[in-house]
Amino acid sequence: SGFRHVALFRWVEGTTVSQQEEVAARLSRLPGRIPQIRSYSLGTNAGVTPGGYDFAVVADFADRADYLVYRDHPDHRAVLDEVIKPLIGERAAIQYDL
Amino acid sequence: SGFRHVALFRWVEGTTVSQQEEVAARLSRLPGRIPQIRSYSLGTNAGVTPGGYDFAVVADFADRADYLVYRDHPDHRAVLDEVIKPLIGERAAIQYDL
Repeated sequence: SGFRHVALFRWVEGTTVSQQEEVAARLSRLPGRIPQIRSYSLGTNAGVTPGGYDFAVVADFADRADYLVYRDHPDHRAVLDEVIKPLIGERAAIQYDL
Repeated sequence: SGFRHVALFRWVEGTTVSQQEEVAARLSRLPGRIPQIRSYSLGTNAGVTPGGYDFAVVADFADRADYLVYRDHPDHRAVLDEVIKPLIGERAAIQYDL
């Protein structure tokens, strides 16, 4: 049981490695600040299959209420607004019951 | 450690519940046929956050070689060709090292 949030991102042309590292660094601090996060997995495209997105977040929660705490948490919103949104070319997301 | 494959789908307009159930049913048989699948999670959008995709597959493997066995396995390709591809409106995917 549980509740999963998945978000995939394709970065805009010209996004640098440094900017991508900043995204991962900022997001990786969230589990220490948002105790509702049960598990948090960040990934960069391994380059095995063509056409894939650039970056993935897979976050697991006890239930949808805990996901909503994460979604709307000010520390999460700050990372989105300050470092992620300016780099988004495409974004695909889903939430589902585990 | 390990290697993760994530695929999100948005179905074409007019896709029925029965067609979606057929996708999930066919995919759910793959772990019994492809032993390289370490864990396999299928999910339908919970309807909590607007704009999400309709369906998710999160598949974990020991390494990228095992993922490639899955990707190219004839039983997997048959599900893709016979029931998934005709329903795809949008697809987003990534593979990354765990």
